[in-house]
Amino acid sequence: MIIKELREVTVPLRGNISNALVNFSEHTVSLVAVVTDVVRNGRPVTGIAFDSIGRYAQGGLLRERFFPRLLAARPESLLDESGRRFDPAKVHACAMRNEKPGGHGDRAAAVAALELAFWDLNAKLDDEPAFQTISRAHGVSRVRDDVDVYAAGGYYYPGDPCAILRDELLRYRDMGFSAFKMKIGGADLAADVARVEAALEVAGDGSRLAVDANGRFSVDEAAAYAKAMAPFGLRWFEEACDPLDFDANRRFIEGYPGAVATGENLFSAADVRNLLRFGGMRADRDIFQMDAGLSYGLTEYGRILAEMDAHGYRRARLYPHGGHLINLHIAVGLQLGGCEAYPGVFQPFGGYCDECVAGDGRIAPSSAPGFGLERKPELREAIGRLLA
Amino acid sequence: MIIKELREVTVPLRGNISNALVNFSEHTVSLVAVVTDVVRNGRPVTGIAFDSIGRYAQGGLLRERFFPRLLAARPESLLDESGRRFDPAKVHACAMRNEKPGGHGDRAAAVAALELAFWDLNAKLDDEPAFQTISRAHGVSRVRDDVDVYAAGGYYYPGDPCAILRDELLRYRDMGFSAFKMKIGGADLAADVARVEAALEVAGDGSRLAVDANGRFSVDEAAAYAKAMAPFGLRWFEEACDPLDFDANRRFIEGYPGAVATGENLFSAADVRNLLRFGGMRADRDIFQMDAGLSYGLTEYGRILAEMDAHGYRRARLYPHGGHLINLHIAVGLQLGGCEAYPGVFQPFGGYCDECVAGDGRIAPSSAPGFGLERKPELREAIGRLLA
Repeated sequence: MIIKELREVTVPLRGNISNALVNFSEHTVSLVAVVTDVVRNGRPVTGIAFDSIGRYAQGGLLRERFFPRLLAARPESLLDESGRRFDPAKVHACAMRNEKPGGHGDRAAAVAALELAFWDLNAKLDDEPAFQTISRAHGVSRVRDDVDVYAAGGYYYPGDPCAILRDELLRYRDMGFSAFKMKIGGADLAADVARVEAALEVAGDGSRLAVDANGRFSVDEAAAYAKAMAPFGLRWFEEACDPLDFDANRRFIEGYPGAVATGENLFSAADVRNLLRFGGMRADRDIFQMDAGLSYGLTEYGRILAEMDAHGYRRARLYPHGGHLINLHIAVGLQLGGCEAYPGVFQPFGGYCDECVAGDGRIAPSSAPGFGLERKPELREAIGRLLA
Repeated sequence: MIIKELREVTVPLRGNISNALVNFSEHTVSLVAVVTDVVRNGRPVTGIAFDSIGRYAQGGLLRERFFPRLLAARPESLLDESGRRFDPAKVHACAMRNEKPGGHGDRAAAVAALELAFWDLNAKLDDEPAFQTISRAHGVSRVRDDVDVYAAGGYYYPGDPCAILRDELLRYRDMGFSAFKMKIGGADLAADVARVEAALEVAGDGSRLAVDANGRFSVDEAAAYAKAMAPFGLRWFEEACDPLDFDANRRFIEGYPGAVATGENLFSAADVRNLLRFGGMRADRDIFQMDAGLSYGLTEYGRILAEMDAHGYRRARLYPHGGHLINLHIAVGLQLGGCEAYPGVFQPFGGYCDECVAGDGRIAPSSAPGFGLERKPELREAIGRLLA
């Protein structure tokens, strides 16, 4: 088996929404294809994946560094022992040849899109959904094939913020979601408290509402928000301070009794290890949100899980960032705590498929081979361009 | 004043050398130009800079994200109060619009090349060498216009390692250098000890020889090397462990009484703050090596210096990574401890100009306007392509 071709198309996110720090209208995602010489039903078997939402496409890095390294490798050097599948760890090592340690930024997303396409490919070669391939490769016995899901949204829109927020969460409730996440930090504290109170009218209880500050606060601002939010008994308080300021995270936790969540902006086992050592995270309640699609793919994600294990944090505390099909397969395959969903936003990548949301706030991948991206109607046009 | 054009060319490094982790034959550098509408001597005044050596060119990221943001900005929004120079902090903020926190990897080099080109441009607009512009902008009174310099080399080559190493350092000594740095960790401990002993025959004294492991060692390997290297009384021991493993750095320091050096693979103030908090660095002896060319340029470098100040580390402890003209101007302009030189390697970017090396192991930039890159013969062809 050989790689016949590696392809990338850059796909813009639709919509014009903002969190406390960034506007997403400029954001893009890399959709990547690994085309092989294996032919099924008259077509080459092709692995497809993307990095994740919330950062940027990586066409430049993929074409400058990572595609050439894989295409220059001896084909058999990338296969597993059976010779019938690619070994994602070998793909990862080949892509990272002559890359120095540290600097886990854009290249982590580029390598992730590429490495994850090999997981999609392997699953298709075995004609099974990717979560099964992922479980088998990681020695995971699945207890069930669905995971907890919550609807993330509650961005800042023009107009009456409380009314719009209530309407938004009501729509999610009508879709079958029973837990929600909203942004804070894009308005002043009093306005955000009013928004949280409006959201609680729909959520019903703090345990079904999380808030997300996207790392915007200073230590003092975070402390003021901690005090104001604590009485609501929220599901979690996400990214109060800069994601790399582990000491600020520890100090924030000291003043906030409820659960906190962070990790979506840490893209390597080395960075996560520092959070585990220095961030004050509590194994009995806090939530981790590292995203394989921004973190070199599943090879490095396995190292991240190993760090969590070694520091006494269960993988049920892990809810990957990025509400999309790839992370759903990863969450089910590795039996993580759950995943998020962005109903209606971050298209064409956000959300799942029609088959997915169950009434009890859980979600399961379909039985389509691989990550099933071809079955998502919103992705059809982009995949068509990718394979054209 | 407006930006007429932003350009980038990707320039490969010449040569085929390795450290303990990477081979540099694939490495590339982005050479960037900011072309303005200001005309002097019949030519547009043009700022030129590059990221740094040891990582990769960033043409993709520059064209995908950073050039478009600057070109879309209102021209006056990027100028300082006089309206006659660009404000690098405004350039930095504009380039980083809608970029999330965390993930300080490749984009840090892309933004650095771009932001540094504005420093070259500002210096040329004032017809002065860049170190003067840098000093003035940072309120630095220079005590002298030269800095300490050492010759970095001692890579692994085929052949008799000790004989080749001795010859290499003898060449540097003949060029006027009196301090040296060599790689370790690419051979086993016994072979590296023999290499250090061979190098000391030329250096004469441990205080004139540093060793660099490029972050290769586990904690246990680092401890073994610490024990073996301590008796030599070396100038410093550089990057024993993964650059982000701050706890490993602290433990290494506990077992090594001499000076240690690290920081070249930390590309943001947020990462450096973690090193300062958790890495065990000693203010009276240890060395920092952050490189503005890999760290978003001088705007972020100012924040890094502020973190060092706040934690009680003097800037004389800072020897930037990357032996080239831009960092020479930065080291003199900010009155840092010194800088490194790579005589004969990492061309066309490595090294300085003919005018630079003094017999007393110090080096001074020339009086050419800006960083003076146009005066470096090895860069002539690449600059010609950039401006063609």
